[in-house]
Amino acid sequence: MDLLQKTINRIKEPDLKFYEAAKERLRQQARPAGSLGLLEEVGARLAGIFSTLDVRLKNKIVVTCAGDHGICEEGVSLFPSEVTPQMVYNFVNDGASINVLARHAGAKVCVADLGVDHDFDPDLPIFHKKVGKSTRNFAKGPAMTRDEAIRSVEAGIEIVEELFQDSAVDILGTGDMGIGNTTPSTAIIAVYSRLPVSRLVGRGTGVDDLGLERKIKAIETGIELNRPDPSDPLDVLAKIGGFEIGGLAGLVIGAAARSIPVICDGLISTAGALLACEISPPARQYLFAGHNSVETGHRYMLDHLELKPLLDLKFRLGEGTGAALAIELIDAATRILFEIKTFDEVAIRDAQ
Amino acid sequence: MDLLQKTINRIKEPDLKFYEAAKERLRQQARPAGSLGLLEEVGARLAGIFSTLDVRLKNKIVVTCAGDHGICEEGVSLFPSEVTPQMVYNFVNDGASINVLARHAGAKVCVADLGVDHDFDPDLPIFHKKVGKSTRNFAKGPAMTRDEAIRSVEAGIEIVEELFQDSAVDILGTGDMGIGNTTPSTAIIAVYSRLPVSRLVGRGTGVDDLGLERKIKAIETGIELNRPDPSDPLDVLAKIGGFEIGGLAGLVIGAAARSIPVICDGLISTAGALLACEISPPARQYLFAGHNSVETGHRYMLDHLELKPLLDLKFRLGEGTGAALAIELIDAATRILFEIKTFDEVAIRDAQ
Repeated sequence: MDLLQKTINRIKEPDLKFYEAAKERLRQQARPAGSLGLLEEVGARLAGIFSTLDVRLKNKIVVTCAGDHGICEEGVSLFPSEVTPQMVYNFVNDGASINVLARHAGAKVCVADLGVDHDFDPDLPIFHKKVGKSTRNFAKGPAMTRDEAIRSVEAGIEIVEELFQDSAVDILGTGDMGIGNTTPSTAIIAVYSRLPVSRLVGRGTGVDDLGLERKIKAIETGIELNRPDPSDPLDVLAKIGGFEIGGLAGLVIGAAARSIPVICDGLISTAGALLACEISPPARQYLFAGHNSVETGHRYMLDHLELKPLLDLKFRLGEGTGAALAIELIDAATRILFEIKTFDEVAIRDAQ
Repeated sequence: MDLLQKTINRIKEPDLKFYEAAKERLRQQARPAGSLGLLEEVGARLAGIFSTLDVRLKNKIVVTCAGDHGICEEGVSLFPSEVTPQMVYNFVNDGASINVLARHAGAKVCVADLGVDHDFDPDLPIFHKKVGKSTRNFAKGPAMTRDEAIRSVEAGIEIVEELFQDSAVDILGTGDMGIGNTTPSTAIIAVYSRLPVSRLVGRGTGVDDLGLERKIKAIETGIELNRPDPSDPLDVLAKIGGFEIGGLAGLVIGAAARSIPVICDGLISTAGALLACEISPPARQYLFAGHNSVETGHRYMLDHLELKPLLDLKFRLGEGTGAALAIELIDAATRILFEIKTFDEVAIRDAQ
C-alpha cells in the first residue's frame, strides 16, 4: 500500500498555462477555428501535460497485461484458459495483432504476466509480476484478497518505474490478454453504472446466446454475492476484478505520477483505467481513450470517465490494439500544435 | 471527352480471388473472428485491388485541388476569395494543415490549380490546370459550360497520369481548397439525395445564421434555375459544381483506371468522388472514405456511395486532412493482412 499511496501523492495537475497557450495558438492558425476537431483538444491537453507546445513523443510503449480468470468455470468464454499463455508467447514472438499495430505506430510492445495460470521461464522477456495463478471464481466468492488487489495495482506501477529505468517513456498504451476477462470488466462497469448487466454485456471473443446468458448470470451472481463497494475501488477490484485489470489500473496511476499520457484500449484496459481514476481522480488528466470497442459496456466506461474515443473501427480484440492505432493520432495532434502556421505567419487575413 | 471516355474504359473490377483469399487468411488469424472490424474489410479490398495479400503502400500522395467560386457573390462564406490563392502558397510553402498531416502519414502533398482567381507564376511547383478564373455564380446561371466541366474532370485524370510519369503511385488521397466550395458541394448532394437543402447545409468555414440562410437560398435558387439532371453527372458539375470538384472527380476516375486506391476527404472531395462514381460506377471499387466530416451533407454523400468513414474526429477543414490521416489506418490494414500469424502458425487451438 505504501508504493500505491506514495505514487498517488506524486500525481500533479497538468499545466493549465500551456493548455491555454496551445488553445490560443490553435485558434490563430490559418484555418477555420476548431476545424481540426478532437485533435485540437488532444493537442492542448498534451501541451499541458508536457508543459510545452513543442511536444515530441519519441519513446512509445504499449504494455499488455495478462491474467487468467476463475470465472471461466462458469462457461463465459469461447476459448479455453490455455490460450492466455499461448498468446503471451505469441506476443513475445512478435506475431500477434498488437505486435503488428504497435510496430505500425512506432511503439514497442512489453508484455506483463500479472496472473497467468502457467509457469513462464524466468528468462522469458516479459515483466514477471504474477500475483497469483488465475483469480478465483467470483461467482462463488471474491476473485482475490484485498492484499492481492493492492499488489496487482502496485505491480502496474512498478512496470512503469522499471520502464523509466531504461529510458524516459513519452507515451504509454495499455492492453490486455486474458481469456474470460470481459466478464470481470463488465462486472466492474455494472457496479459503477448501476445499469442492468443484461444491458452492458457483450459477446467477448464471440460466445453464443447461451454463453451470453451464462455470462450475465455469473456477473449478477458475483455482484450479489460479493457486494463490491463502488466507493472503495480496491474492494471492487478484489471482489470481481482480475489481476491484469489491477495491473492496468497501476499502469495509469504510474503514468500519471510520471506525468506522461496514457492511452486506454478497450473494455478490459478501460476497466483498469476506470478503477485507477476512482483510486486517484487526478490520474484522469493523463488518460486518453484510444477507441470505442464493440463491447457494449465500454461506452458506459467512457461516459463514466468523460472521455471521447479517438477511433471507432469496430474493434473487439484488446491486447492494446486500439490504443496502438490511437497513438498515431495522438502523435499527429502534437504535430498540428507546432507545425501549422498562423494567419500572421502566412499573412492571410483572419476572418475572426 | 476522348480522354475521359478512354480512361473510363480502362477501369477494371478488382480481383475477387485475392479479396476472398484475404478474408480467409484474416479468419484464420489467432484472434477472435472479425475482431479487427473495419480494418479487415479495408485490408481485403486492398488485396483485391493489388491482386496480392502482401500489399505495400510506398508512394503515398495527397492531391489538393483548388478553385474559386462565383457563388461567393451571394455572401455564402466567412472568408474572401483572396484566401484561396493565399492558401495555395501556404501549401507550397509547407505550412498548412495538410502539409503537417500528410508528412505525419508519410505522404507527399501536390497542389493543383483548377480554377483559382489568381495568376500563379508558371514556375510555381503546382499542377497548372486552370480551366477558368473562378466559376460563375450558379444562382444566376450555370457555374461553367459543359465543355469546361469535361475539361476539369480530364485535368484530374491528367494529374494522375503525370504523377505516374514520375513513379508509380500506390495510394492517392484527395483534398480541396476553395473559398465558398461547401456551397456547390452541398448543392450536388441536394440533387442526388433529393433532401431539402436546409437539412443538408452546414456552416463551412463558420458562417453565422444569416450566412447560412444566404447559403440555403443560393443553393435552392441555383437548383431551381439550372435544373441539373442527376442522371447526367457532367450536367450537374457544369450547372452547380466547381472546377476543383471536377478535378477531384477526375482524380478518382484516374486512380481507378490505374487500379490504385483513392481516399476521399470531406464534403468537397467526396462531392467530386460522388460525381466520379456517377460518371463511372466501377470507380467506386477503388474508393475509400477517409473520415466523417462535421458538414451535414457529407454523411449523405457517404450513404449514397455506401462507404463507411474510417475516422470521425469532427474535422471540418478539407485540404485532404481527413484523407491524409486515414492513409495511416489504410496502411495499418495492409500490415494486418500479412503480418498477424494464424492459429496454425502459432499452434493455438481455434475456437471455431
